[in-house]
Amino acid sequence: MKLYTYFRSSAAFRARIALNYKGLAYEPALVSLAKNEHHESAYRRINPQGLLPALVDDGHRLIQSLAIMEYLEERYPEPPLLPKDPFDRAYVRALSDIVACEIHPLNNPRTLKHVRKSYGVDEPGINAWYRHWIAEGFGMLEGFLRSEARSGTYCLGDTVTMADCCLVPQVFNAKRYECDLGPFPTAMRIFDACMKLAAFDAAQPSKQPDAT
Amino acid sequence: MKLYTYFRSSAAFRARIALNYKGLAYEPALVSLAKNEHHESAYRRINPQGLLPALVDDGHRLIQSLAIMEYLEERYPEPPLLPKDPFDRAYVRALSDIVACEIHPLNNPRTLKHVRKSYGVDEPGINAWYRHWIAEGFGMLEGFLRSEARSGTYCLGDTVTMADCCLVPQVFNAKRYECDLGPFPTAMRIFDACMKLAAFDAAQPSKQPDAT
Repeated sequence: MKLYTYFRSSAAFRARIALNYKGLAYEPALVSLAKNEHHESAYRRINPQGLLPALVDDGHRLIQSLAIMEYLEERYPEPPLLPKDPFDRAYVRALSDIVACEIHPLNNPRTLKHVRKSYGVDEPGINAWYRHWIAEGFGMLEGFLRSEARSGTYCLGDTVTMADCCLVPQVFNAKRYECDLGPFPTAMRIFDACMKLAAFDAAQPSKQPDAT
Repeated sequence: MKLYTYFRSSAAFRARIALNYKGLAYEPALVSLAKNEHHESAYRRINPQGLLPALVDDGHRLIQSLAIMEYLEERYPEPPLLPKDPFDRAYVRALSDIVACEIHPLNNPRTLKHVRKSYGVDEPGINAWYRHWIAEGFGMLEGFLRSEARSGTYCLGDTVTMADCCLVPQVFNAKRYECDLGPFPTAMRIFDACMKLAAFDAAQPSKQPDAT
């Protein structure tokens, strides 16, 4: 199995956690977003969208981190990253989607670049944009976690799920931009618990071979 | 089953198609985004995030359209909206995620509102923002459809899937903002085929009870 990854890509980070958690060994293929390698033809042949991550398994190319995690879950079901109960599964996927659809797209590099270019926004302005979406998105996440009251050590009770694989990389991003995470104690409690696990710890940006 | 919906919400539109396609009757609970009803306490009690859609089934509240479609697929498997092969499933989910994670979040009302307010952007400027993300996102979608060469009448061969449920509402949005969809012939061919089906036709904005 080969994972096209970049240490700071939070979508790749989700996939790294899922692979580690399931004990699946993979060969990392490093694609530097900083050096624009995702736009070069070598990577475009793998993923024409130029987005990370991409996974190659059994000769098949897979893209989009949520789809990759669902694939891993179906193909390599143990240990599971989704519960059995249909309502629990919907809850875990909803949490994952809050991160993947309501937070991350608004703050990924291509969005920041477009905001910077279109409106002549400087670094403090970009930080303000970033923090706005973290505050709003984590507000949704925290509100949902509290209203459902199904979290335990992790997002769903005491078992790791796909939702934790999405939550943790987003917290890393928020910390990098020095966002105030004080108002989100449930999310942060879960983050701290996850980071005690080897699967999460080993997947973090600073422990990747391309970390700078 | 009760679906909290608004005629113009493209995430609710996805859920309406899925429900129709599976022949599941639902009671529409209308929440006007134009009148800010999604921020009022009546709806906040259903979904604290104030996002549409929400589905109530068997006394359970479900949110996030992708999670809702996955739930419907698991709970009401016939007719299926996901294929059986794991690589085909990953392909369908990747297409769905390109719409739900790479296009829609950048153009939904809360994003447009923030761009307008933060950078003093006028209507032509908002249209330019909108069209930029449609062009970029549909470029990804079209590129992926072509590189995979698995489409037939629909996104995957000749059977409707979740990917079609995501593609069609996004095309409606793009048309509303008068985006140039000429460069995306594969996506548009699939859109046209979908719109010949009753499940898609009946789910479109103009045929909803709250259409204005």
